[in-house]
Amino acid sequence: MPLWKVYHPVDAFSDADKQVLAEQITDLYTRLPRFYVGVLFFEVPKQSFFMSGTPTDKFVRINIDHIAINNIPADRKAWWIENINKVLAPFVKDRGFSWEFHIDETLRDLWSIQGFVPPPANSEAENRWKAENKPTAYELLPSS
Amino acid sequence: MPLWKVYHPVDAFSDADKQVLAEQITDLYTRLPRFYVGVLFFEVPKQSFFMSGTPTDKFVRINIDHIAINNIPADRKAWWIENINKVLAPFVKDRGFSWEFHIDETLRDLWSIQGFVPPPANSEAENRWKAENKPTAYELLPSS
Amino acid sequence: MPLWKVYHPVDAFSDADKQVLAEQITDLYTRLPRFYVGVLFFEVPKQSFFMSGTPTDKFVRINIDHIAINNIPADRKAWWIENINKVLAPFVKDRGFSWEFHIDETLRDLWSIQGFVPPPANSEAENRWKAENKPTAYELLPSS
Repeated sequence: MPLWKVYHPVDAFSDADKQVLAEQITDLYTRLPRFYVGVLFFEVPKQSFFMSGTPTDKFVRINIDHIAINNIPADRKAWWIENINKVLAPFVKDRGFSWEFHIDETLRDLWSIQGFVPPPANSEAENRWKAENKPTAYELLPSS
Repeated sequence: MPLWKVYHPVDAFSDADKQVLAEQITDLYTRLPRFYVGVLFFEVPKQSFFMSGTPTDKFVRINIDHIAINNIPADRKAWWIENINKVLAPFVKDRGFSWEFHIDETLRDLWSIQGFVPPPANSEAENRWKAENKPTAYELLPSS
Repeated sequence: MPLWKVYHPVDAFSDADKQVLAEQITDLYTRLPRFYVGVLFFEVPKQSFFMSGTPTDKFVRINIDHIAINNIPADRKAWWIENINKVLAPFVKDRGFSWEFHIDETLRDLWSIQGFVPPPANSEAENRWKAENKPTAYELLPSS
């Protein structure tokens, strides 16, 4: 969590582009351990990529799942829309690509990393996972 | 929105097949701007495509996200099931492929196209987006 | 339903590995017809696979949709987390891969197999589909 799947035209992004974009996406999730953030890139040939029912090699379509952050209030939703668009702009708008993204929110308790169920948001354990940038065994405090 | 991901056997569909299928899928969403509709095709080799725990090159599995249309009543759900099956039939049933699809509904306010939050359903702005088949800046009317 | 999408490093799994893993995943869904279970494998090159904003060829990221099984109670969620991790361990943990999975629950009545709407859970028709491992026409009993 989050999981980003970026569907893009063949050769739209160099390896260095992907590196920078993945870093900047990861930077958006400041509250979370960095290792929670996954970004996958998929080249889709023009003959397999349709918008408006028309084949395209000028479109970037992004599919995002949020797991650790969900049921967020309206102003936080607006924050995500705005800040994701800011991060994307140099890679899409400024290169003449059209783009679209949507975020699905999925259930926090149907999620596992490295065999662990991730600790509650803002818990001591989550803070440690974040500081160490890796998942380790933890104990839940009573009523935490 | 909607986003269709069509996972199919290698060489199941020609470029012309994909074109026709993508157009007919797009035609299903008559109420929406056509550019809302995205259809991506992915070839999955038999050795990576398992149904019933068995590798297959005779199956088409479709994963759909609905964003602009959600919380729809039961009769509309039945309409989608029936009409999607009608559109698919010549490309799957009539060619001896088995097929399955499911639709997820995701949150309308976690969605952005070309930097814009798409206008409310049936709003003036949506009508203009539809007529022009492209997203442009709009103002929300009070209490609309 | 369920649909598993396994994103893995290039050459992480042999065809035989994928076969065994897909079978064992399918075995987890004992209550369901086996043909409900779909497992797709996707190789993602290191330069397109980012965790923590860093390219990786040591990570397996799994995206699962549950359709026929949803709104499950907390103890059943824990069961899935535990048993999925057990099935995965020899293919990830024991090979030095890191791994993460999450499950989304989608709407049962926006789902179709082979042109049919699958019968209700635990119905006579579902039992027959399970026994025969294929979908066939069925009639809903009144108030079933």
